[in-house]
Amino acid sequence: MKFYENGDGLTEPRGFFCSGIHCDVKGKRDGKLDLGIIYSSKPCHAAAVFTTNDIKAAPVLYSQSLILDPEATFHAVVANSGNANACTGKQGKLDTIKMGKETARHLKAQPQEVFVCSTGRIGVTLPMSKITAGIRDACEDVLEGFDGAKAFQQAILTSDTCTKSCSAIITTRYGEICIGGVVKGAGMIEPNMATMLAFLTTDAGASNTYLQTVLRKAVDKSFNRITIDGDMSTNDSVIMLANANTGIEVSTEDESLDQAFQEAVEAVCQCLAKKCVTDGEKVTKFVSIQIQGAKSNKDAEKVGRCISNSLLVKSSWYGSDPNWGRIVDAAGYAKVGLEFEKIDMFYNEIPALQKGEPIERNKSQWKSIVSQRAFTIKLDLNQGSGESEIWSNDLSEEYVNFNKSE
Amino acid sequence: MKFYENGDGLTEPRGFFCSGIHCDVKGKRDGKLDLGIIYSSKPCHAAAVFTTNDIKAAPVLYSQSLILDPEATFHAVVANSGNANACTGKQGKLDTIKMGKETARHLKAQPQEVFVCSTGRIGVTLPMSKITAGIRDACEDVLEGFDGAKAFQQAILTSDTCTKSCSAIITTRYGEICIGGVVKGAGMIEPNMATMLAFLTTDAGASNTYLQTVLRKAVDKSFNRITIDGDMSTNDSVIMLANANTGIEVSTEDESLDQAFQEAVEAVCQCLAKKCVTDGEKVTKFVSIQIQGAKSNKDAEKVGRCISNSLLVKSSWYGSDPNWGRIVDAAGYAKVGLEFEKIDMFYNEIPALQKGEPIERNKSQWKSIVSQRAFTIKLDLNQGSGESEIWSNDLSEEYVNFNKSE
Repeated sequence: MKFYENGDGLTEPRGFFCSGIHCDVKGKRDGKLDLGIIYSSKPCHAAAVFTTNDIKAAPVLYSQSLILDPEATFHAVVANSGNANACTGKQGKLDTIKMGKETARHLKAQPQEVFVCSTGRIGVTLPMSKITAGIRDACEDVLEGFDGAKAFQQAILTSDTCTKSCSAIITTRYGEICIGGVVKGAGMIEPNMATMLAFLTTDAGASNTYLQTVLRKAVDKSFNRITIDGDMSTNDSVIMLANANTGIEVSTEDESLDQAFQEAVEAVCQCLAKKCVTDGEKVTKFVSIQIQGAKSNKDAEKVGRCISNSLLVKSSWYGSDPNWGRIVDAAGYAKVGLEFEKIDMFYNEIPALQKGEPIERNKSQWKSIVSQRAFTIKLDLNQGSGESEIWSNDLSEEYVNFNKSE
Repeated sequence: MKFYENGDGLTEPRGFFCSGIHCDVKGKRDGKLDLGIIYSSKPCHAAAVFTTNDIKAAPVLYSQSLILDPEATFHAVVANSGNANACTGKQGKLDTIKMGKETARHLKAQPQEVFVCSTGRIGVTLPMSKITAGIRDACEDVLEGFDGAKAFQQAILTSDTCTKSCSAIITTRYGEICIGGVVKGAGMIEPNMATMLAFLTTDAGASNTYLQTVLRKAVDKSFNRITIDGDMSTNDSVIMLANANTGIEVSTEDESLDQAFQEAVEAVCQCLAKKCVTDGEKVTKFVSIQIQGAKSNKDAEKVGRCISNSLLVKSSWYGSDPNWGRIVDAAGYAKVGLEFEKIDMFYNEIPALQKGEPIERNKSQWKSIVSQRAFTIKLDLNQGSGESEIWSNDLSEEYVNFNKSE
């Protein structure tokens, strides 16, 4: 597998076109790109995973309904930033339908062949005349074959500090398959992928059902591992389009191809998820929390999430303070029946606790590890074979300052 | 009921004596009082509620074992700050036993008649020679009838900014009963009362079983409602002593006395819990979150906790930004089946949402309410009759700065 970061991403697989334009969603006239289109003239099969928040934005409910038909095909995604179209009642639903319809009209597709996504402020209705004008311009760009991969990446950003993309190429006995991806994250990123839009494209062919299985597995090993501040958004969506441009069909029937494809999709999702965590609002550190020896995988995940969501733990990382006491305390309120006397703990590969006893002679090494920009904390609970990995980050003063008002 | 705040607290009920001394637990030679005793020469019945964290500090496990016997009586509590004696293995257990034994020896009581409490840094063993010297001095003070209520209040503080005490007097047909209380909080205060030590005394008489029922109810309506940052400590303890000095016995047999006593204990616990929230680390606001119309009380509590633990919500309070969108989003990840179209929401008594529709004309009033030092956010989910109340606060930049290292 060849792997590329920060390139064009979505338009690396053949037959996909992107655009991103400024239509002034927020009324700030700041020129920020805020609406974009992903387009394939060949019909695509697709898969999608959405937020589990009880409160789902109108575009989430809409896009979710489109993918229900296992035979459904798609031509495009339209996405805007600056306004999440969440908690916007009946008007919000009508506006989402309109976004899909307008996009379809310009692209000469059917309305049900267009996914709709929004991200940004909650509780405000969309400025629809700007949006429809923006859709017209963005559609023109993709129809003209305009190279708008970077523009699309920018158009979906909110408080992100940079664009985030990658692509993977796998060589099969039938030729090359490419998978591209982009993500916008930042803000409240946590369990089950919050305030996050991720898009993947591939020039392989595959059924919706197959793609859904592949994407679900990949999301579980990537976006569902990330957590920034305990919040889950109303709008999280991961959508994958496969346009079969290469003529290479992937399915479970060809086991080695299936496996290679799964791995590549996972690699793309993991790369994007990691980019999200390190680009979380005002984040200075990436921390991988690995829990093993739990009674079950679920218990391991609970422990990992308690650690990664503890403000005291996250504040201490920001201050480069190893503070294993706070970590163990946080692990304890997962309430999965931890026994302190059994816990082994490591900073990277350096032991910190052995059966609950601190290895004080390693103290200076813990400190230097936690001072790095990226490190691993591993806990072996020695109670079973359950394991889990969570990707987290620190909490800085700037985070609070940044979020104290919108 | 007469009610007093910030007075002597524990020594208001007759027959209780307190002391607080500096024995330099942290080795800083800063003169901070860091060890204290509560003492009654008459034997007391008692009740206690402890942390639900899987990782319990040695003194918690020890004190928990003492109260198992429904006939047990007590003479004292010994408590230190600066060191939690948590995650300290076998040595920690021995040190706790020693603290109890030494206190009992000086007070001429039995070891099992002395509760032991510790709070402070996790993972470091106690400096026992300082502790035992401190216990000797603190015991001398209470035996001499020294008026050390204020000193005790100070001796249990960690990062608290002030001492926190109150007392209630109820007039019964048999005479007056007094209930006094103190608390140390701050730091990580959340569900099920974190890093918190609270002590109550009363000169009424009552069985351990009766006291336990009264205290449990009161804790559910007070300390279990408070949340500062999502963390639960290894050391949380609420302990109540009743020395029967007045000769007035309280039990369920005298219904009106029972009720008056329950109310007074609740009033004391609620006052102390509120003091904790507003004295949370670097806190600027007190927010009461009232959820009603949930399918069950448990669902209501989940929703309240999700709101009160959301960093985005807490940051916006700090910035005096009403931001109902973030509040509803946070409510949604309780995953109790919220329906946005049914939600009514209020800032104090001012409607913000009516069946999911924002009442925009009230916007300036929301803003002025959220700018106050204390306010209420009420959500009616309109799905049932479950309700819950959570007391929370904001998250300031100073919190992070303060906690980035110890």
